Amino acid sequence: MTKPTISVQLSTAKKQKPEADKLEFGRTFTDHMFIMDYTAENGWHDPRIVPYQPIEMDPAAMVYHYGQSVFEGLKAYLSSEGRVLLFRPEKNFERLNKSNDRLCIPRVDPDTVLEGLKQLVQIDKEWIPQAEGTSLYIRPFIISTEPYLGVAPSNMYKMLIILSPVGSYYKEGIRPVKIAVESEFVRAVAGGTGNAKTAGNYAASLKAQEVAESKGFSQVLWLDGVEKKYIEEVGSMNIFFKISGEIVTPALNGSILEGITRNSVIHLLKQWGLSVTERKISVDELVQAHKDGLLEEAFGTGTAAVISPVGELIWKDESLVINNGQTGEIAKRLYQTITGIQKGALPDTFGWTVEVDKVSQSC
Amino acid sequence: MTKPTISVQLSTAKKQKPEADKLEFGRTFTDHMFIMDYTAENGWHDPRIVPYQPIEMDPAAMVYHYGQSVFEGLKAYLSSEGRVLLFRPEKNFERLNKSNDRLCIPRVDPDTVLEGLKQLVQIDKEWIPQAEGTSLYIRPFIISTEPYLGVAPSNMYKMLIILSPVGSYYKEGIRPVKIAVESEFVRAVAGGTGNAKTAGNYAASLKAQEVAESKGFSQVLWLDGVEKKYIEEVGSMNIFFKISGEIVTPALNGSILEGITRNSVIHLLKQWGLSVTERKISVDELVQAHKDGLLEEAFGTGTAAVISPVGELIWKDESLVINNGQTGEIAKRLYQTITGIQKGALPDTFGWTVEVDKVSQSC
Repeated sequence: MTKPTISVQLSTAKKQKPEADKLEFGRTFTDHMFIMDYTAENGWHDPRIVPYQPIEMDPAAMVYHYGQSVFEGLKAYLSSEGRVLLFRPEKNFERLNKSNDRLCIPRVDPDTVLEGLKQLVQIDKEWIPQAEGTSLYIRPFIISTEPYLGVAPSNMYKMLIILSPVGSYYKEGIRPVKIAVESEFVRAVAGGTGNAKTAGNYAASLKAQEVAESKGFSQVLWLDGVEKKYIEEVGSMNIFFKISGEIVTPALNGSILEGITRNSVIHLLKQWGLSVTERKISVDELVQAHKDGLLEEAFGTGTAAVISPVGELIWKDESLVINNGQTGEIAKRLYQTITGIQKGALPDTFGWTVEVDKVSQSC
Repeated sequence: MTKPTISVQLSTAKKQKPEADKLEFGRTFTDHMFIMDYTAENGWHDPRIVPYQPIEMDPAAMVYHYGQSVFEGLKAYLSSEGRVLLFRPEKNFERLNKSNDRLCIPRVDPDTVLEGLKQLVQIDKEWIPQAEGTSLYIRPFIISTEPYLGVAPSNMYKMLIILSPVGSYYKEGIRPVKIAVESEFVRAVAGGTGNAKTAGNYAASLKAQEVAESKGFSQVLWLDGVEKKYIEEVGSMNIFFKISGEIVTPALNGSILEGITRNSVIHLLKQWGLSVTERKISVDELVQAHKDGLLEEAFGTGTAAVISPVGELIWKDESLVINNGQTGEIAKRLYQTITGIQKGALPDTFGWTVEVDKVSQSC
């Protein structure tokens, strides 16, 4: 297969880069973006890199009305030797296409979008922050653009990739959070869109998050929508528990997002010879394990925070303090290992990192 | 309260209107649109009518990523005496604010948006088609616009109202449809967003609809997401059945949209002295009633079609032909009565219609 051709139009006016210590998550964007169009006649076409700019859409564009929208999140890191590294980007585009299938959006060619992503990151390489814990957040997304109010899959789409330099998720070091088990609102149900990375799932989650924050919790722990009994996810992350030496995480059941960090964590734990099981976990089991002094650790996994330790779980009127509210050993080791591999500081035995420079030089 | 002030900028170039017999649903838009902005500092502000035009948005605008989007659908009709009538528009804005609450979008002032809607319809009055069954479809909607990738409610929104002249839903007269009971995909679950009119619900419904159409069915009949046993909605309409003389419709349970046509139908049936009950209806009950020869009618209710008779229900391998595949008496009477009231041809005993001319003259 020949390499996809991506046209490039460079920006003439470079924006000012944010100061390293003032980086926030997802507020500043780089000088360029990737864009590609889809029409029923021509399929996906015209992949191009252009200056970062507003997009102009008809008010009847279907995404505003019927929400056909999928996205991904990954990061580019600068190693201490100045190498630009991506972490398992092919997994993101594999998942993007799964989300596309669920949302009736035409699949993209993974080679084209990965090449576009690499060239974009290469062009905006100076935007990758260098400080500990910082990175360049990458947001590929697809939206339906046909101006039509019929409830049907759109015949026109745009795919974009935008980049945002982000600060350390843990400004004062990795810190356990307090989360509330959600008993009223439901994030997703089997047969719904819970395992697709689509806008509507996030819209549906805001209310519970708002209520939880107003009560002083950082995140909500979602239960299944059918029995409201089994653990699903925490906020927008997957969740792991260590119960009496066994590490467990909810099995992928159709309503849980198949996290790439989740997958990496499972691989690492197995490599370390630790017992890790994907299965149903009820909230009752957690409460009982806590009573018995066997709930040893809990942590979320996701691209933004990598590993987010849970120090306290609230279920109805009960408070379950985990590991004295401290970051557990497993969470610490996972965080250090994954971020070490991502930054090129530790050996990449799984072949997870993809270097951007090398590839683009071979164009 | 003083009347809200809505600034008006008229279009200088009028578009060509579509021919009456070529009207489709939701493909053509009028010369003007209503728009209003929200910021955390200023609240909802600057309501205005401007020429219909594309909107320019940052690629990071939150609606593209996290789907905070709510909408409404209603119609304006031209009576035989040339009066412009809206049908229960205050109910739409009441429901819009309920959807806003669920999606963490700030409420709008119903008086302002209703006044904006009336002025907009008045300005684009020439676009209201006159032929039997035609009308001007009205689409108010709100989208989140803040350029930010954090998962949180947006601090910026736009509300728009756009207008589209639409043809008769039944080109060859009211015609019963064949629908399949959906057993794999789920539209919504209690605790989710099923009772809000938000984009994600429609995105989630596309796949099942695509599968149903490929098998020759017009629509899917949704079951509840928990037990997959109880009837919820048909396609994007509410559903009614006549079983052994009793008219029944699923009770509002948190995952069913509170349809305005549904509400009007219940009022009319009661006015006619007919028995109408809102309750749980299982698919097993329908199958049994059909076997016993007691499933006498089925019809969907919604703004687009008003009343959509169901001639055949498919459940697994069973086919339930209803009323010999013909439109039932109740469906016919409801369709004639509601469209008659909407067009000003029948007495409006409930005070459902709102005349646009009169109101705007009093400005």
